Amino acid sequence: MKIALAQLNYIVGHFEHNTRLMIDALAQAQSRGVDLIVFSELSVCGYPPRDLLEMDHFIDQCEAAVKKIAGHCQGIAAIVGGPSRNAQTFGKRLLNSAFLLSNGAVEEVYHKGLLPTYDVFDEYRYFEPATTFKTILFQGKRIALTICEDLWNLDEPALYRISPMDELIKEKPDLMINISASPFAWSHLADRHFTFSENARKYKLPLFVSNQMGGHTELLFDGKSAAYNSQGGLVGFIDSFKEGIKIFDLEEVAESKVPASVLSLSESEKNDIIYKALVFGIKEYFGKLGLKKAILGLSGGLDSALTLVLAAEALGPENCRAVLLPGPFSSNHSVADAEQLACNLGVPYDIISINETVDALQQSLGPYFKGTPAGIAEENLQARARAVILMGLANKFGYVLLNTSNKSETAVGYGTLYGDMCGGLAVIGDIYKTEAYSLARFINREKEIIPANTIDKPPSAELKPDQRDTDSLPPYEILDDILQKYIEKKMSAAQIAASGHDPELVEKVLRMVNNNEYKRHQTPPILRVSKKAFGSGRKMPLVGRFPE
Amino acid sequence: MKIALAQLNYIVGHFEHNTRLMIDALAQAQSRGVDLIVFSELSVCGYPPRDLLEMDHFIDQCEAAVKKIAGHCQGIAAIVGGPSRNAQTFGKRLLNSAFLLSNGAVEEVYHKGLLPTYDVFDEYRYFEPATTFKTILFQGKRIALTICEDLWNLDEPALYRISPMDELIKEKPDLMINISASPFAWSHLADRHFTFSENARKYKLPLFVSNQMGGHTELLFDGKSAAYNSQGGLVGFIDSFKEGIKIFDLEEVAESKVPASVLSLSESEKNDIIYKALVFGIKEYFGKLGLKKAILGLSGGLDSALTLVLAAEALGPENCRAVLLPGPFSSNHSVADAEQLACNLGVPYDIISINETVDALQQSLGPYFKGTPAGIAEENLQARARAVILMGLANKFGYVLLNTSNKSETAVGYGTLYGDMCGGLAVIGDIYKTEAYSLARFINREKEIIPANTIDKPPSAELKPDQRDTDSLPPYEILDDILQKYIEKKMSAAQIAASGHDPELVEKVLRMVNNNEYKRHQTPPILRVSKKAFGSGRKMPLVGRFPE
Repeated sequence: MKIALAQLNYIVGHFEHNTRLMIDALAQAQSRGVDLIVFSELSVCGYPPRDLLEMDHFIDQCEAAVKKIAGHCQGIAAIVGGPSRNAQTFGKRLLNSAFLLSNGAVEEVYHKGLLPTYDVFDEYRYFEPATTFKTILFQGKRIALTICEDLWNLDEPALYRISPMDELIKEKPDLMINISASPFAWSHLADRHFTFSENARKYKLPLFVSNQMGGHTELLFDGKSAAYNSQGGLVGFIDSFKEGIKIFDLEEVAESKVPASVLSLSESEKNDIIYKALVFGIKEYFGKLGLKKAILGLSGGLDSALTLVLAAEALGPENCRAVLLPGPFSSNHSVADAEQLACNLGVPYDIISINETVDALQQSLGPYFKGTPAGIAEENLQARARAVILMGLANKFGYVLLNTSNKSETAVGYGTLYGDMCGGLAVIGDIYKTEAYSLARFINREKEIIPANTIDKPPSAELKPDQRDTDSLPPYEILDDILQKYIEKKMSAAQIAASGHDPELVEKVLRMVNNNEYKRHQTPPILRVSKKAFGSGRKMPLVGRFPE
Repeated sequence: MKIALAQLNYIVGHFEHNTRLMIDALAQAQSRGVDLIVFSELSVCGYPPRDLLEMDHFIDQCEAAVKKIAGHCQGIAAIVGGPSRNAQTFGKRLLNSAFLLSNGAVEEVYHKGLLPTYDVFDEYRYFEPATTFKTILFQGKRIALTICEDLWNLDEPALYRISPMDELIKEKPDLMINISASPFAWSHLADRHFTFSENARKYKLPLFVSNQMGGHTELLFDGKSAAYNSQGGLVGFIDSFKEGIKIFDLEEVAESKVPASVLSLSESEKNDIIYKALVFGIKEYFGKLGLKKAILGLSGGLDSALTLVLAAEALGPENCRAVLLPGPFSSNHSVADAEQLACNLGVPYDIISINETVDALQQSLGPYFKGTPAGIAEENLQARARAVILMGLANKFGYVLLNTSNKSETAVGYGTLYGDMCGGLAVIGDIYKTEAYSLARFINREKEIIPANTIDKPPSAELKPDQRDTDSLPPYEILDDILQKYIEKKMSAAQIAASGHDPELVEKVLRMVNNNEYKRHQTPPILRVSKKAFGSGRKMPLVGRFPE
């Protein structure tokens, strides 16, 4: 039996696009002798559709799409994902379903049992979990069909009361098929590979996984759809962040002797996949919204440099515009470094002084500010003047302003709301500053794209004379370690201090993180590349006390 | 048996505060001969704690608080709410629990079975639902103890697979007690009253409900803790938005003959409760964050007028500061109307022209804007210059900028990002413009507080000559009806048009709503007073197509 995995780039709610992609893939697979083509979770509508699922007419369109695709399943069968209406007398009104389409109709339906509701997932908001599970029969083969999370119940203690595969295996299936919408995070790749490999090994069955690819607001889906043999060996896969259809012969996969393996990324591989993910994320955000051109403020510092490199790669340098916005405390080298980078990339740039705007603001505010010492208020005027100028150009010429904040400064609130925190998309908002350095060096591995001075000089916001980040923050190696332990590992202040940090410093950093929730509430979507990004996956109260 | 309901104002994560409140209430109740005092859902930590629940040391502190309160339960018993660790070998690591504290210890524990995961609720993100339910015994009385949503399963089809009360009733309990954290929405009050009344009637038992009060970021909890007799009659309650302890005699409630009633609000009662809710919401946001002073841009229009009235009531006029920021297209009457309002309220105000800043911006941008027609970019410069000046004063003097956007303009994106969309708190962001008019007239019911001209003149953003909202928007009566049908009722464009609107206009309005998700992504928290507010209760993709 020939099984094709289809790794396609859906657009949430764009039924015409999604259906066309799937029908084209069907035709292509059919011409190559495929028996069964497998699309990803909620493929008819794209994942995650979020509250669009609450609209009746949205569900109608999902159902119509399934029907339309079924009409093309003659001489070939397909497994597609979509919501279906819950016919039971209780529960959420929808189920998250996989449909086996064959002979022009829906022949079998499977409903998802394990509904991820943590981090960026909120499936129980919409779906009733299934509690009974049956294999499906196709061409004499018994298929243990599951949907994404259904296979993610290997941990002890188990996250869920039931394990669908433990039920399905009782029917002695011949193979496993899983349709997924499993988003990218660089350190999640190893977990995902392990989970699939381990399921194949545990149930002693070949496993075929079709995963969504594409950028969906903050979430990036890498795909990497794959086939595993019954020893858990990875027999073949579709490249990350690429559309593709890959055809497997069931018998060949079953007989393959590839051994199970462990995935682990070197620092360089980590940078490589993060670089690809971020470039992909920008491309997707712009592409799917019909946008073309990006603008950003280029300061001469590391963060805006990195953002521009990624944007130029994603959109083409000709579609990017850098604006150097020197102010009263900008150093000469900042302008020079920024110009050098723009030249290296071939990105057009302008230099617009903010001094006139800052002067006008200070004059208007002069009668009120008189007699007060210059401080944060004055610093923020500069950052906000930059934002207003950038947004002026963006609004006038149809650019999208890219936000250049990194995860470290977003965490501690080292940024100006309505100033450098502006933008339509935060490109490196899930990259700690230490990771940003590593990524910059990776970008420069063959030739100097980012000026060495940008990487080597001490980071500064340049909002007051001789300012350095380390005036108010600890060195980034220390800061990032504390932040990771607090944000990712959810350790207490006492635990972080016990791991080797100054207790006072830990308290200070945690207080900064907690006191700046209000700023993060108003940030643009952040491209998620880690397992715990700021955004929909981290929900903190703004009003409250945080434990230490 | 004497039962006290304690309606207290907890602060999320502030264990010292919450524990002290509860211990004080215990002492007070004990001195008045109370046998059992009932606190609200998750009272030890405050509701909703959100991802703080994922921190182990947060749960440790919850457990310590329960133990501490138990230590004060000698000669009096208490029911308190808190998370508990899930001891089962599967499921989420926490349960949402109610503890019966007596004789200095935890004597009984009940775990919540129905976990609301919709709109602003995401309890399945954190908690495993209980599937078995037992009554608790106290002083010879069998109590059917439940937690909030456990009683909200009256609809057909039922939202949940099980109904805890249907299990508990089999043990022939003598009374029902429900501990809640049910947030305010003006039209939810009737639902809530009906639900409690109907449960009492259905199970033929007296019902005591202890509900949380307090402002928790965007969510307002009104409390209105109450006792119902077994006919569903409302025997007594604690006032909305007030702390209080109310003591009931179980036998008196059981014997009371008050008949069941239906709650329905007149327009004036609706305005009254919304007014109270918004004033309360401001007070809470500021109070719990330790903030005192608010600033806002006063335009002479309805929205900022309404916001200032509410802020002055909440914080005192002396803690408010209004800034009139006339620009090139501000009309004289706008300044005069704004001054009149500030005088009426006794709020200090300043007039700061934005012209100098706008001129400086236009000069800096002149070389780039040259030869282009003036449009949105130039309009936005004005709105953003205002924001920068307001934020300058806010940063310098420790004000919080109040956002004055209403729900209609937030819905259609009629506002400038980083301009009038700035602020720490959106006061009237859940009030449609037509509701804003009604609320303004309610405020003026006895004397003219808001100048009549502010209410009567055609609304305008005054960003270009003779601009009127109706230049780009339909009249608000029509707009708001379309918006409510789309946002609240989730009707399709076709259905809305069929209800009596121009199909082209409907398409245009829906497109505006959908295309402006990206702006709403960056708005401040909005005080929620309706059943469907923009904010955490409405999760839409930014990237995607919306069905029509």
